[in-house]
Amino acid sequence: MAVYTDVTDEALFAFLAGYDLGEVLSFKGIAEGVENSNYLLHCEGGYFILTLYEKRVNAEDLPFFLGLMEHLAEHSLSCPLPVRRRDGAALGTLAGRPAAVVTFLDGVSTRKPDAHHCAETGRALAQLHLAGKGFGLSRHNMLSIAHWPELFAASRARAEEVAPGLAGEIASELETLARLWPSDLPQGVIHADLFPDNVLFLGARLSGLIDFYFACNDALAYDLAICLNAWCFEPDGAFNATKGRALLHGYQSLRPLAPVERAALPVLARGAAMRFLLTRLYDWLNVPPGALVKPKNPLEYLARLRFHQTIDHAGEYGLEL
Amino acid sequence: MAVYTDVTDEALFAFLAGYDLGEVLSFKGIAEGVENSNYLLHCEGGYFILTLYEKRVNAEDLPFFLGLMEHLAEHSLSCPLPVRRRDGAALGTLAGRPAAVVTFLDGVSTRKPDAHHCAETGRALAQLHLAGKGFGLSRHNMLSIAHWPELFAASRARAEEVAPGLAGEIASELETLARLWPSDLPQGVIHADLFPDNVLFLGARLSGLIDFYFACNDALAYDLAICLNAWCFEPDGAFNATKGRALLHGYQSLRPLAPVERAALPVLARGAAMRFLLTRLYDWLNVPPGALVKPKNPLEYLARLRFHQTIDHAGEYGLEL
Repeated sequence: MAVYTDVTDEALFAFLAGYDLGEVLSFKGIAEGVENSNYLLHCEGGYFILTLYEKRVNAEDLPFFLGLMEHLAEHSLSCPLPVRRRDGAALGTLAGRPAAVVTFLDGVSTRKPDAHHCAETGRALAQLHLAGKGFGLSRHNMLSIAHWPELFAASRARAEEVAPGLAGEIASELETLARLWPSDLPQGVIHADLFPDNVLFLGARLSGLIDFYFACNDALAYDLAICLNAWCFEPDGAFNATKGRALLHGYQSLRPLAPVERAALPVLARGAAMRFLLTRLYDWLNVPPGALVKPKNPLEYLARLRFHQTIDHAGEYGLEL
Repeated sequence: MAVYTDVTDEALFAFLAGYDLGEVLSFKGIAEGVENSNYLLHCEGGYFILTLYEKRVNAEDLPFFLGLMEHLAEHSLSCPLPVRRRDGAALGTLAGRPAAVVTFLDGVSTRKPDAHHCAETGRALAQLHLAGKGFGLSRHNMLSIAHWPELFAASRARAEEVAPGLAGEIASELETLARLWPSDLPQGVIHADLFPDNVLFLGARLSGLIDFYFACNDALAYDLAICLNAWCFEPDGAFNATKGRALLHGYQSLRPLAPVERAALPVLARGAAMRFLLTRLYDWLNVPPGALVKPKNPLEYLARLRFHQTIDHAGEYGLEL
């Protein structure tokens, strides 16, 4: 969580001259986002987030991300709306980086979600999936099952440093997942990273979804499986079936799952745990010198993966059958 | 620039229950301040900065800092105003740290001050010195000339790593400063760190001063000498006499310097350069593992010190005699 690129007042004023936002009233770097530099910008025109896209973001993906937020906002999902410049573009250049201004959403993310938060998140995820229909662009999921073997290869040699037997366990699970992974699920735009930090609440009400920089096209139910992992486990590692039920019920209140999706949920949840296990393992083993971000422990996701391996059917997650 | 202490939504809500600020609308860690953790807090009652005081701040000093801001704001200086809790206290505890809420000031700090910014800053510094009269608390300057020998002792053995001859040059200058340092100057509350990042502007107008966490009692003209160092040198190291003149003229428009202060300005400027040279040298040599802050190069202040050694009288800084 850091600001990677420093923006001078001079550069900021020159950049904002392309927008109709009025005078700058304040400008603060915010400790948010591990991939980009984010500033909270207060202008006469309101409050905004100014994002500078750092190297880890592929500039070719930016029209997808910005276009998606615009499409979703137009379809009544509460999410940041990219502000267009006077010349109509949503993307500019600041301090040598691609940069965009989006509207600021009020709300506070919760660190200890309760069942109500899970239900609201399930509803919002379904709303996102429905609103995403008809969005004209698409983006390949660079972290889908097809990419897990190469991601694992990058950490395999050092996986034993993290836990004895880890390399063998992952290798075997990747084989199983490749064999069981469904190919007939309804596809669409998924958020792919809807963790509690990316959901804002005002009191009990969900006020918006943020951080669409992993969004891509994939199986919609896989997005729900990511949320099961991200929202429904307790700090001690236990699965909370009340939260699972709330999340799934909230989702199905807007978009009931098809039978193939219900049947696939346990394997999708295993895959989602694997995806976060692999990226966390890589980040854990590859902390750059002078890193500003403390990597998250990958073993949390190994425990989740092992839990999902014990699940026979989605009813055990709390899905109403 | 970082957030050192993580605050959960739960802990925040419990802390704010002691205040009359209404519902929390948003809460973002901001990349500001090298000593403390700062959050931008938006409540129904407005925008605030929530600060958690980290270990480097002495908790015994907090009543001085918070009381000073309150005193200065009551005397029409634009600075953050501590918000009192319902029980009347300005200081609480959050995440195990002393914590306070202060009002948020609009404005943007400038990275490339021009003469106008210097003039405004000079005026504001004089206003601070005048407004500080009558403040009931006092705080010893822990970075005054009396403390430079001990500060130097902590870096001396490794000073040569930074520049050959540095240890001898500092030792000799410390002797000279001890000999020349005036003891008859008007004293009062000084900001002691009024660098461009701590002065906010809205367009051309100075909108406020921030970061009072080095404030203490010392010679008022020493504060002005700090500003000469902080505001009037170009990135290439050259002293800009136009900016010097503007700063001094702005200051004197509200508080004309006494003859002893005018005479002392060159030695005070040398001392101010020494103070920042010593703290930067220490920080340069003692970067903690996993540091979030890149230390500033101490040699910038060695160059300034050498420049001030060539000054015979304050007229060379642009002081109208």
